[in-house]
Amino acid sequence: MRRSGGAGKAIGVFDSGVGGLTVVREIFRQMPAEKVVYFGDTARFPYGNKAPETLVRFGSENAAFLATQDIKMLVVACNSSSAYCLPSLRRAARVPVVGVIEPGARAARQGSRGGRIGVIGTSATIASGVYEAALASLDPGLRVFGRACPLFVPLVEEGWTSHPASLQIARAYLAPLKARGVDTLLLGCTHYPLLKAPIARVMGPGVRLVDSARETASQVKAVLGEAGLLAEGAPRPVSDHRFFVSDVPEKFVQVARRFLGPRLPPVSQAGPGVEAGGPSAGRRGRVR
Amino acid sequence: MRRSGGAGKAIGVFDSGVGGLTVVREIFRQMPAEKVVYFGDTARFPYGNKAPETLVRFGSENAAFLATQDIKMLVVACNSSSAYCLPSLRRAARVPVVGVIEPGARAARQGSRGGRIGVIGTSATIASGVYEAALASLDPGLRVFGRACPLFVPLVEEGWTSHPASLQIARAYLAPLKARGVDTLLLGCTHYPLLKAPIARVMGPGVRLVDSARETASQVKAVLGEAGLLAEGAPRPVSDHRFFVSDVPEKFVQVARRFLGPRLPPVSQAGPGVEAGGPSAGRRGRVR
Repeated sequence: MRRSGGAGKAIGVFDSGVGGLTVVREIFRQMPAEKVVYFGDTARFPYGNKAPETLVRFGSENAAFLATQDIKMLVVACNSSSAYCLPSLRRAARVPVVGVIEPGARAARQGSRGGRIGVIGTSATIASGVYEAALASLDPGLRVFGRACPLFVPLVEEGWTSHPASLQIARAYLAPLKARGVDTLLLGCTHYPLLKAPIARVMGPGVRLVDSARETASQVKAVLGEAGLLAEGAPRPVSDHRFFVSDVPEKFVQVARRFLGPRLPPVSQAGPGVEAGGPSAGRRGRVR
Repeated sequence: MRRSGGAGKAIGVFDSGVGGLTVVREIFRQMPAEKVVYFGDTARFPYGNKAPETLVRFGSENAAFLATQDIKMLVVACNSSSAYCLPSLRRAARVPVVGVIEPGARAARQGSRGGRIGVIGTSATIASGVYEAALASLDPGLRVFGRACPLFVPLVEEGWTSHPASLQIARAYLAPLKARGVDTLLLGCTHYPLLKAPIARVMGPGVRLVDSARETASQVKAVLGEAGLLAEGAPRPVSDHRFFVSDVPEKFVQVARRFLGPRLPPVSQAGPGVEAGGPSAGRRGRVR
């Protein structure tokens, strides 16, 4: 059992909101002895339509908050943040930093038979071109086609994952990728797996859908292992984890239950802006 | 010409983003001698899916920022903020505070022949019940039916104001209001006038659509007049106005041009969070 010293510290994870819990779920599954500190920036959600400079600012504020929580690793579980923040976070952080882009690109390449890969994501992620760069570094022969789908996150937030409007919007967004004959579609946003049904229906059975949560957790495990920081032993009790959000926790808790079920720990309100001392500063979350 | 003393000060206006410019456009039209200081909280946009406590915190931070700009009045040009912030802002502010709810309610009542009024808005606005309360205080005999339309703001942001998906989504949201036989529909969100075409098509020619921008500007004029604070004289040059946003200005400027055309002044990045000194602090907006 290896929980003393660095290995006993937590893995810090941040996302713009609830989407990063797909990565947390995989961390719980692959590394049950690990402790997780999660921050969801729900007060400033969403990130995908904001400017690079603003995402860099939010990322460094979120990392600074998690650094107060005694973490041994920082996981950027948001594609938009990963697209812009990794270099600055790696310069500033005293711990290893793992994003979702490189693991997602690797999973897409492994899944592709014909080497024609579509990438969908937020406006910020697609505008960054990071997936094209990551895929090219894995294999310069891949053909990569990006497409921003800004309405997918609001559709998921509205719960319209199987509404006819979602199918119509998916058709509009995905038509150019279908026309390119992609054989693999990388879901480059943690919300998108919830729209797998309409996306799969539009793309058809010949196209493989890939998301990065599992691969990101594997990368976390590999990096911790190499650094001798992997926790071993009995699974952590739920109460060991610490979850924070910047809006009040209620709505987050409702959606998070769908991701984590009984493994969801109590959720408190904290983080950038909240700490600074507004009316909600330090407010303890009501978890119903 | 009345610009000395209090009358020479600016009207401070805030919104979650660009929507409040509908009110600014009306202020420019009805009171061309007035100077406006606008703050759009684009880094934390949107407000309509966030909790009351968080909206109160954002409202007080935005008002504190505008208070540094030597204003004679505070206009809350966001329905979600107006729904929750007016009492606390009025307690804290040293200037008159005008929101969009009461003017919107008055406009809807004036427009209604049969006394059956539908109200659409963000989740936050509709959950607050403020429009029902405001309309009941004007006329307890009115029948009021509220409906949250969370996807309308993302559709406008995506520019899909006449896309078939917008019509389909409008049908889904508005069907219950049609079934209630409303004769007037209050657009209780500053983004919604941009979706007038699909909304009107769904509701049919017998239903009057009402938005609050014009009525809010009239209320501003009335309150300033009563307080002896109305600026008179020649129209202000564009360069007298000051516009700030919390994300970088580019995207805001693009959309704001559609609202204000050549009357859009230069836009700078400033406000809560930005002032605190992130990498973008004090950054001057590139207005292209």
